[in-house]
Amino acid sequence: MARICVVRLGHRIGRDQRITTHVFLVARAFGATEGVLCGDEDVSVLKGIARVSELWGGGFSTAYEKDWKRFVEGRKQAGWKVAHLTMYGEDFAAGVRKLRALRKNVLVLVGAGKVPREAYELADFNLAVGNQPHSEVAALGMFLDRLFSSRQFAKKFGGKLKIAPNKCGKVVVHV
Amino acid sequence: MARICVVRLGHRIGRDQRITTHVFLVARAFGATEGVLCGDEDVSVLKGIARVSELWGGGFSTAYEKDWKRFVEGRKQAGWKVAHLTMYGEDFAAGVRKLRALRKNVLVLVGAGKVPREAYELADFNLAVGNQPHSEVAALGMFLDRLFSSRQFAKKFGGKLKIAPNKCGKVVVHV
Repeated sequence: MARICVVRLGHRIGRDQRITTHVFLVARAFGATEGVLCGDEDVSVLKGIARVSELWGGGFSTAYEKDWKRFVEGRKQAGWKVAHLTMYGEDFAAGVRKLRALRKNVLVLVGAGKVPREAYELADFNLAVGNQPHSEVAALGMFLDRLFSSRQFAKKFGGKLKIAPNKCGKVVVHV
Repeated sequence: MARICVVRLGHRIGRDQRITTHVFLVARAFGATEGVLCGDEDVSVLKGIARVSELWGGGFSTAYEKDWKRFVEGRKQAGWKVAHLTMYGEDFAAGVRKLRALRKNVLVLVGAGKVPREAYELADFNLAVGNQPHSEVAALGMFLDRLFSSRQFAKKFGGKLKIAPNKCGKVVVHV
């Protein structure tokens, strides 16, 4: 299977901490392999995700990149395809079908504040999960769900903790 | 079509403002009809959602309910089914299929902090969107996407603003 790297653009300390954390948690839980933080360098977010990975497994790695543009350009040169999630883009369902047919590694750009023009230009696909304002967290989940045809939920994470699905309560198993 | 009401349990001012806002924005954009805030009364969240609805349409209403338990019990007595989204629950895909077959209005419980035991007990379905920690925002999006079989993206919102989907830029149309 191709590698999927989720890039959070324009993170702002204070304002975006929880949303960016949710973005990376969804990336990890929905089968992405890497999360890259751009914008403000925020150790607390990366530490939080590392802690989740340590307990729950899955081999999701994270890094900070100061120069998002150079990073994206480098991956493009290495053959990766770039999908930018934006409410202004084209229908994501059709875009995901095209993207899957290419069988390449995928960089997913998820903006925090205003996304620079260059992101739209560097992207091979500007994709909208519906054209209503909502949430980059839900958009990323939907995009990855389609990209993996929902098979991400069957992934074995091999962590120290796992959950025994249950009708009416909480059962956490320490492996 | 049945009515869908998303109930945010245990909202905390300060800590949960942005995540709760994303929960309601996803509820609205993914076809729910109502959003109900429980926990701290937070006018700024409800005003923000009302402003989005005013501009973008869709007829999504919001309210604050001080006593979440009485509210949920009342709706149950009126014939609504209750689905609680929790990482500890049963597979959501199977749950959604059962729920749809019932053809009832649906109350969706989405917790902020620790969810009280009674929520698990009042729920007709405790459903997990994957059994990994991630985000209630993404979980809600996935749940509603399945409930509506992705038809929510074809909904006509009839707002003052709408987007003309575009390959590489932003086109907002003032209707």
